[in-house]
Amino acid sequence: MAKKYVYKFSEGNKDMRELLGGKGANLAEMTLAGMPVPQGFTITTEACTQYYTDGRQINADIQAEIAQYMTWLEGENGKKFGDPSDPLLVSVRSGARASMPGMMDTILNLGLNDVAVEGFALKTENPRFAYDSYRRFIQMFSDVVMELSKKRFEEIIDEVKAKKGVKQDIDLDADDMKQLSVMFKAFYKKEKGEDFPQDPKVQLMEAVKAVFRSWDNPRANVYRRMNEIPYDWGTAVNVQSMVFGNTGNNSGTGVAFTRNPATGEKALFGEYLINAQGEDVVAGVRTPSPISKLKDEMPEVFEEFSKIANNLENHYRDMQDMEFTIQDRKLYMLQTRNGKRTAAAALKVAVDLVDEGMISEKEAVLRVEPKQLDALLHPQFDAEALKKAAVIGKGLAASPGAACGRVVFTAEEAKEWSDRGEKVILVRLETSPEDIEGMQVAKGILTVRGGMTSHAAVVARGMGTCCVSGCGEIVVNYEKKQFELDGKTYREGDWISLDGSTGNIYGEAVGTVPANPSSGYFGRLMGWADQYRQMEIYTNADTPKDAAQARKFGAEGIGLCRTEHMFFEGARIKAMREMIVAENESERRKALEKLLPYQQGDFEGIYEAMEGCPVIIRFLDPPLHEFLPTKESDIQEIAGELGITVEKLKNVIASLHEFNPMMGHRGCRLAVSYPEIAEMQTTAVINAAIAVTKKGVYKISPNIMIPLVGEVKELKYVRDVVVATADKIIKDAGIDMKYEVGTMIEIPRAALTADEVAKEAEFFSFGTNDLTQMTFGFSRDDAGKFLSAYYEKKIYESDPFAHLDQNGVGKLVKMAVELGRKTRPDIHLGICGEHGGDPTSVEFCHGVGLDYVSCSPFRVPIARLAAAQAAIKAPRVK
Amino acid sequence: MAKKYVYKFSEGNKDMRELLGGKGANLAEMTLAGMPVPQGFTITTEACTQYYTDGRQINADIQAEIAQYMTWLEGENGKKFGDPSDPLLVSVRSGARASMPGMMDTILNLGLNDVAVEGFALKTENPRFAYDSYRRFIQMFSDVVMELSKKRFEEIIDEVKAKKGVKQDIDLDADDMKQLSVMFKAFYKKEKGEDFPQDPKVQLMEAVKAVFRSWDNPRANVYRRMNEIPYDWGTAVNVQSMVFGNTGNNSGTGVAFTRNPATGEKALFGEYLINAQGEDVVAGVRTPSPISKLKDEMPEVFEEFSKIANNLENHYRDMQDMEFTIQDRKLYMLQTRNGKRTAAAALKVAVDLVDEGMISEKEAVLRVEPKQLDALLHPQFDAEALKKAAVIGKGLAASPGAACGRVVFTAEEAKEWSDRGEKVILVRLETSPEDIEGMQVAKGILTVRGGMTSHAAVVARGMGTCCVSGCGEIVVNYEKKQFELDGKTYREGDWISLDGSTGNIYGEAVGTVPANPSSGYFGRLMGWADQYRQMEIYTNADTPKDAAQARKFGAEGIGLCRTEHMFFEGARIKAMREMIVAENESERRKALEKLLPYQQGDFEGIYEAMEGCPVIIRFLDPPLHEFLPTKESDIQEIAGELGITVEKLKNVIASLHEFNPMMGHRGCRLAVSYPEIAEMQTTAVINAAIAVTKKGVYKISPNIMIPLVGEVKELKYVRDVVVATADKIIKDAGIDMKYEVGTMIEIPRAALTADEVAKEAEFFSFGTNDLTQMTFGFSRDDAGKFLSAYYEKKIYESDPFAHLDQNGVGKLVKMAVELGRKTRPDIHLGICGEHGGDPTSVEFCHGVGLDYVSCSPFRVPIARLAAAQAAIKAPRVK
Repeated sequence: MAKKYVYKFSEGNKDMRELLGGKGANLAEMTLAGMPVPQGFTITTEACTQYYTDGRQINADIQAEIAQYMTWLEGENGKKFGDPSDPLLVSVRSGARASMPGMMDTILNLGLNDVAVEGFALKTENPRFAYDSYRRFIQMFSDVVMELSKKRFEEIIDEVKAKKGVKQDIDLDADDMKQLSVMFKAFYKKEKGEDFPQDPKVQLMEAVKAVFRSWDNPRANVYRRMNEIPYDWGTAVNVQSMVFGNTGNNSGTGVAFTRNPATGEKALFGEYLINAQGEDVVAGVRTPSPISKLKDEMPEVFEEFSKIANNLENHYRDMQDMEFTIQDRKLYMLQTRNGKRTAAAALKVAVDLVDEGMISEKEAVLRVEPKQLDALLHPQFDAEALKKAAVIGKGLAASPGAACGRVVFTAEEAKEWSDRGEKVILVRLETSPEDIEGMQVAKGILTVRGGMTSHAAVVARGMGTCCVSGCGEIVVNYEKKQFELDGKTYREGDWISLDGSTGNIYGEAVGTVPANPSSGYFGRLMGWADQYRQMEIYTNADTPKDAAQARKFGAEGIGLCRTEHMFFEGARIKAMREMIVAENESERRKALEKLLPYQQGDFEGIYEAMEGCPVIIRFLDPPLHEFLPTKESDIQEIAGELGITVEKLKNVIASLHEFNPMMGHRGCRLAVSYPEIAEMQTTAVINAAIAVTKKGVYKISPNIMIPLVGEVKELKYVRDVVVATADKIIKDAGIDMKYEVGTMIEIPRAALTADEVAKEAEFFSFGTNDLTQMTFGFSRDDAGKFLSAYYEKKIYESDPFAHLDQNGVGKLVKMAVELGRKTRPDIHLGICGEHGGDPTSVEFCHGVGLDYVSCSPFRVPIARLAAAQAAIKAPRVK
Repeated sequence: MAKKYVYKFSEGNKDMRELLGGKGANLAEMTLAGMPVPQGFTITTEACTQYYTDGRQINADIQAEIAQYMTWLEGENGKKFGDPSDPLLVSVRSGARASMPGMMDTILNLGLNDVAVEGFALKTENPRFAYDSYRRFIQMFSDVVMELSKKRFEEIIDEVKAKKGVKQDIDLDADDMKQLSVMFKAFYKKEKGEDFPQDPKVQLMEAVKAVFRSWDNPRANVYRRMNEIPYDWGTAVNVQSMVFGNTGNNSGTGVAFTRNPATGEKALFGEYLINAQGEDVVAGVRTPSPISKLKDEMPEVFEEFSKIANNLENHYRDMQDMEFTIQDRKLYMLQTRNGKRTAAAALKVAVDLVDEGMISEKEAVLRVEPKQLDALLHPQFDAEALKKAAVIGKGLAASPGAACGRVVFTAEEAKEWSDRGEKVILVRLETSPEDIEGMQVAKGILTVRGGMTSHAAVVARGMGTCCVSGCGEIVVNYEKKQFELDGKTYREGDWISLDGSTGNIYGEAVGTVPANPSSGYFGRLMGWADQYRQMEIYTNADTPKDAAQARKFGAEGIGLCRTEHMFFEGARIKAMREMIVAENESERRKALEKLLPYQQGDFEGIYEAMEGCPVIIRFLDPPLHEFLPTKESDIQEIAGELGITVEKLKNVIASLHEFNPMMGHRGCRLAVSYPEIAEMQTTAVINAAIAVTKKGVYKISPNIMIPLVGEVKELKYVRDVVVATADKIIKDAGIDMKYEVGTMIEIPRAALTADEVAKEAEFFSFGTNDLTQMTFGFSRDDAGKFLSAYYEKKIYESDPFAHLDQNGVGKLVKMAVELGRKTRPDIHLGICGEHGGDPTSVEFCHGVGLDYVSCSPFRVPIARLAAAQAAIKAPRVK
């Protein structure tokens, strides 16, 4: 039997997401529930995949199937496609399995042409509406399908408005609209060298193709990479009979949430525009009215909508985000989906739904995106600093959090400035999908136009980036790279601050303080998460301050305490350099003696900050040349400080030069060459543990981690040094103290021979940063140059340094887990690479049976939640 | 039951090598066969291992067991240890499982002390002999056991001789010997602060300990690493009743082989000394007589010895190397073992033994060490000339053979001098790809820096050119065209000689004799090898000349034809650089157009040289910066040549800089970024194949190999480019031509995901050089700095770049073989890393089921033999 590529809405349901996409499945579900949905059909995601398989062609079978369903739709509506007296018009919209806001393009009013528009005008008795619809269609089709410049169309509208001396689109009449359609078609012909397509079937097929094509546009690819959406999913296409919110003042269109997406408050939240089509709300050209106003304007419609909204929320058992259109006081539902929400709202909604008896605790834990918590963890304004700061303007509180940075006006500049370490605030008239990368790096986003559901607002909330939108008082001049607000001019590079929770804008840098995510909702949800998760969550912290921060966020230990960062300050770096230039062991020992008290002091501070929780201290890792200067002037100065000749220092630097430092003399290789370094570090670790233990509050059991091990004998060698040193100190102190020695698994060979390595290691910590580099055979520092080509050509869909590569690196991890446990069933296993704070990687770690993940302090709550979700989805048998 | 640590000779046999060591097992075997062996016992290798386990102590149990067997030996001899009237004397000798000549130390005459020596003199009625024995014992004990300087003892002997005015030891009488023993003891006391040990039991236990200890001395460790003898084997100790070759002119001692170890000729071969102890023969103080003279001097003894020798050879079915002592005309056998022999002798002996019906062809194949063949394939020094030559320095034996020529310092000079008929030795700090031409014409290459896998070493081995690398004592002054070594200055044009098999450097011309591997013996043995091996032997060759050489040595295909070396010469490098500095694809294509005819021509030459055998061509691999200049003056010049500004060239160089070039933009990553490179290379490969096929002699089926693949999609991307290009050319040519596309497996991830990779690869070639680097996480170029510490600390026992690491890298290879075959059962599998020419690695490749190994031309015979041995030892079920 031939595959079915097209489904009527009435043929599907909400569980057919994979085939129909989210939008299609939900339209089907609403249809099933008898809600007022304009009918139509969905072309499946498989048709999209087939389109790519066929070399970007819609094959004859699928075309025929679409035509067949189009005929059905004509019958359903009692209208013919392209009928000169009463044409059937449709919308064509993309709908992937996962929501990809703003990524895919929509076409409305498809089916109009020079003849049909006349019939449409007659039939609706509304020529202005008919021509408005036509010019919108030409505009959208040209932009989305034919990739003509949007800007030129806007300029034409502005010209016509200027000529007529009006400011609002709404001031244009039927003739103006007709004139616009003529001018648009002329521009189209000039650009494309052919007439604007008049055959509705051609229009439809081109539109479907455009949707399929847009699955592979660069913006979509970037979004997918960010959100780990596989390329081979494809998108569905929804073809739906048009209803019109722009037939006059009895019509309108809007979007609404069943609960407030910013706060989670339980009340209809949204906005609508009278006499408008859908894109007007999103584009933010006119400022819409709050949904509550609809109660006054059209009480019956509002009541019907409220009832439907309530039913949908009960049906989906989650907060819904709905689109609707009112045509001549009749309500139509165009879409529903689980609503995007801020982290705070996500927490409140999840907890409230539990309290309302709608979902279980486990479900609540699954309802919050771990990555979203970021927003709660980000800094807020320092209250004192804020008191002195003057508000220069106010926009919509589109995405919470506080941000302070320097003004830039384009996404490219945002990227550039940020790449060189500047904090930036991206200021735009409005944002569009092309701005994604710039938005990603910005500390905050400020837009002149657009509401709470504008592109800027939706995307910023998704990213957890602070955003103030729709501040109409701002006058932007892109060319001069400046904006005016409140009578003052702000230029590129000037400092401003944004409060995404109030909408306030400050014309200066306002200091920020760390977030305090200890709200009741946060606490309750994280409490459930902690109850269900099966892995411990540790943190990577090198200082007492970071350790304390991580403890506040719920870290249960330190999985990676890097000792080298401690050597870079003041007197320490000098002693470190003395150690490096030492000509023999006794000179080296002398320098190490000087480092000992610093290191011991650091460890004491960290033990105390961690309140007796496990602390895994990694021994010196980077190649020694990292501690030496490279600039001529520094070399001169430092040679003087060290009391050696410049020539000698240069010789040392030259002798330490490496062709591939990543694979050079570092990690435990240093301890093999200079065991006295390991002795000093052991002494510091153990002395500090004894000192803190003797204070009587905490009983410290230190953990020492040997990095870059590739062979059990090298671990044994260093371990023997550690054990000899530690045992002697402990014995001399007459104290009863346990300690463990373990290793990083970050070299492929260590994973491959983990059964051997486990003989000398009481714990493994997977260093997936280096393990990824070596397993892929590319250096993180260099890969940037060619990885963009790899993404472009879809060889890699996500950055293996952000998301653990489960097929390759993951296989090594799995192997090492199994081999390690075979030798030592109670071996303690964890991960301390960047991946420890990435939710999908955390899920993988849960799946392979790690005991803990360790991540940076700000990612600890994320890891807690991700670990809980993984455990709820696939609990481990203990 | 307690472990037995000591065995009488009569308790063992030749199959107990592991426990008793080679010497002990053979002494036991001779005892069993009723041959005249002075009796004694063997302390097992397990006792040695126990000694190290116990922290370098002989534990009480083992001491007791030794004492018990000593008591038995006293009974056997009817003499008491330390008896003042007739003391039992013993020798103490090491004996490991594998012969380790010169590595372990021997002590004779143990049991003598100030009192016993008097009794010994009385009993033997030979005071000179007794005191000679005593002073020898003191000397050996002090040297071997107590590590006192040997030299000082020789000086004392010289002083005594000088005082007496004689020149030979033999001119010293009993009193002189007595005086020597007194002086030796005084020196001992001065140095050690205590008297020379008088208790024979103490002497014995110290001697046994010294043997155990010597297992771990630096020479032993180096020898083991060179010969892949595991550290944990340990050595046995043989304690044997002394017999004396120095009782007078009716006594003597000697060594002999059953066949000539240099030529293999079947006739007793050896030498002996009258009135001497064993070490005199070896030390070469007096010139011994050929064994044939013994027939005249002591015919009965000679006859008995001949008979025993003959029996031993028949018994062991191999040429024997024997030590004997004659005491008062009675023959004693002290040792027998399979004799070491030259490559030529090994071939002749093996073939002769087959002809004599003593062994089978398969056994014959097993009798020749593959590595030995090296000597037959390269010129060697004339033995006579070598005796007179003085070694002035030593580097690494990087590429075997002997060379003599005049010093030059640059590749250009090498070419110039060689063009006018001079033999040259190219002396460089280190070599780089630009030096290829100079290296090609040089007779030998000497470098200051770089290890066994440095550029110089790898390239020289490929060319079969003698190379000594990494002689750090050399101070080169390029400007003055001279180098200093061992206090002398060598200038351009001076003669020097190199031994690439030992690393020795001679400051003069030493005559060489050409290689002659074409003896009938070589042919017959290799014929048998080819008959029994189950893997194909390919070669790594980049030029028609190398290919032809490899064919002569029996290569059945090219497993690795690197295409980048072809880009370094004259006009090619210019076009290559144009390609690199190109600003866009069309400029790049223009430059590639210029490279195409060169590359095509090269491939045609190689196809023809290989006479239709498979040729696997690897696409461009190194990072592009390798083709650009680094020196300021070169940059100036080359910018001019390329017609671009110096600034632009510098910008390109800067943009290509990489932190870790090994893990950078190279291999197939280049083809992903610039698919037009792969197109050009494909065009060259296919055009060349068509051109050669059209000549009608050979039908070429090209093989294209994509390097550095880590993910199947990247292979697929490049493969698609190759296939599209190749199919079009083949179709346009209207020819029927098959070709295959495969990949290197040299990145851990490729091995881990080999089931996926195999979907797009018709063959795998394991690039074990890079695979080793990435699996171990160290760069070949940098590892030299720390690997010495690793050897010293016994973390690594052999160089993983020379011998495939079977536990780690080998595990990946095995995994990839299994996964690859699972996806594609007929996938063609081979290896093309340096390991392809290393016998133990070849054995591993046979074991995991590879179809072929590929190695440099001069290693082809070695690989053939190694593959045959592997197949004979463990034949694969087909």
